[in-house]
Amino acid sequence: MSDQRGFTVWFTGLSGSGKSTIAEMLYHELNARHMKVEILDGDIVRQNLSKGLGFSKEDRDTNILRIGFVAELLTRNGVATICCPISPYKATRDAVRAQIRAFVEVYVHATLEELANNRDPKGLYKKAIAGEITGFTGVDDPYEAPEDPELVVDTMVETPEESLAKVLAKLAELRYIEDAMPIVEGPKVHSGLTDLRVTDAGHVAEGR
Amino acid sequence: MSDQRGFTVWFTGLSGSGKSTIAEMLYHELNARHMKVEILDGDIVRQNLSKGLGFSKEDRDTNILRIGFVAELLTRNGVATICCPISPYKATRDAVRAQIRAFVEVYVHATLEELANNRDPKGLYKKAIAGEITGFTGVDDPYEAPEDPELVVDTMVETPEESLAKVLAKLAELRYIEDAMPIVEGPKVHSGLTDLRVTDAGHVAEGR
Repeated sequence: MSDQRGFTVWFTGLSGSGKSTIAEMLYHELNARHMKVEILDGDIVRQNLSKGLGFSKEDRDTNILRIGFVAELLTRNGVATICCPISPYKATRDAVRAQIRAFVEVYVHATLEELANNRDPKGLYKKAIAGEITGFTGVDDPYEAPEDPELVVDTMVETPEESLAKVLAKLAELRYIEDAMPIVEGPKVHSGLTDLRVTDAGHVAEGR
Repeated sequence: MSDQRGFTVWFTGLSGSGKSTIAEMLYHELNARHMKVEILDGDIVRQNLSKGLGFSKEDRDTNILRIGFVAELLTRNGVATICCPISPYKATRDAVRAQIRAFVEVYVHATLEELANNRDPKGLYKKAIAGEITGFTGVDDPYEAPEDPELVVDTMVETPEESLAKVLAKLAELRYIEDAMPIVEGPKVHSGLTDLRVTDAGHVAEGR
């Protein structure tokens, strides 16, 4: 598909909410449509754009704006760009939205209780709640939910396939893709790219 | 021109050698060919990718690798990408070359004497030579000239138009463009994007 219209799908939500799972499934769907597509996530961003940044609000914002800068460069050159950093601050997400314009914000919702009780394989939420690690978004660091995102997916009640279908339907509605029907078959495995890890300093080092 | 083949033109050379002048002229030429083209330079990079980096070898390398990361993303999506950081270290340029592959290194040559005596409107070379500012590439900080670049332009003996013509001829030879004949007319003004400035700490803050 040449001369495709670029856009950015920006997944925001708490760690473990399912952002990167849905983002990767979307990546494969767009790839299967022979679109130009890039995913800016996890290790890629940490290694290449945000090395040296910490977990202050300023550093988190710098990280998000840097991802937004690259997403905008790709978007204006016709690339379907997928980003899934936690991006906890509304004003920062809105700054990226204003810059990119062709911006589809997807709020990936799951409650803190759900995440801490049922999706905490490394025990990071439990450690954060116990105060053993700090700077954990949703526990001792803020998460500002989107007020007017293009889409909300609720991974408490939807399967990943159902959430993906909603994202594809929204992209078709916005005329970024032609066919909303999922076409990738077989298991859609989470690559682990965005798995949480804890730094030496006791911070959580997911995408912020 | 849809489905164009992406490539990166990487200008390296001392401050004041003429990198950004030729880079901007090239940008306009590729634009006039209706190609997708981006220039990663000066203020753009400083504001969006390298805020907080200093002038140690490690920080300079991080800056170059970060520009290279973005250039590679654009290149693999079919964008003609122009970069013109000083990029003084050969190994770092070679790392970027290995990553991007469709990489056209242009060494923009002018001697230190020429730059200090004739192209030093802000007196930065003179200050560096006098030891009043530090970390100045080519004076008290190393510049490793390319050993086997795709092209050398010598701005001591060539006009900017002549250097540009050589760049276009090389791109045509490499089949990245079809027509090497310059098509942009009228004055080609240096925008000042990459003008040198001195930081509060007495360092020079061009593209490194």
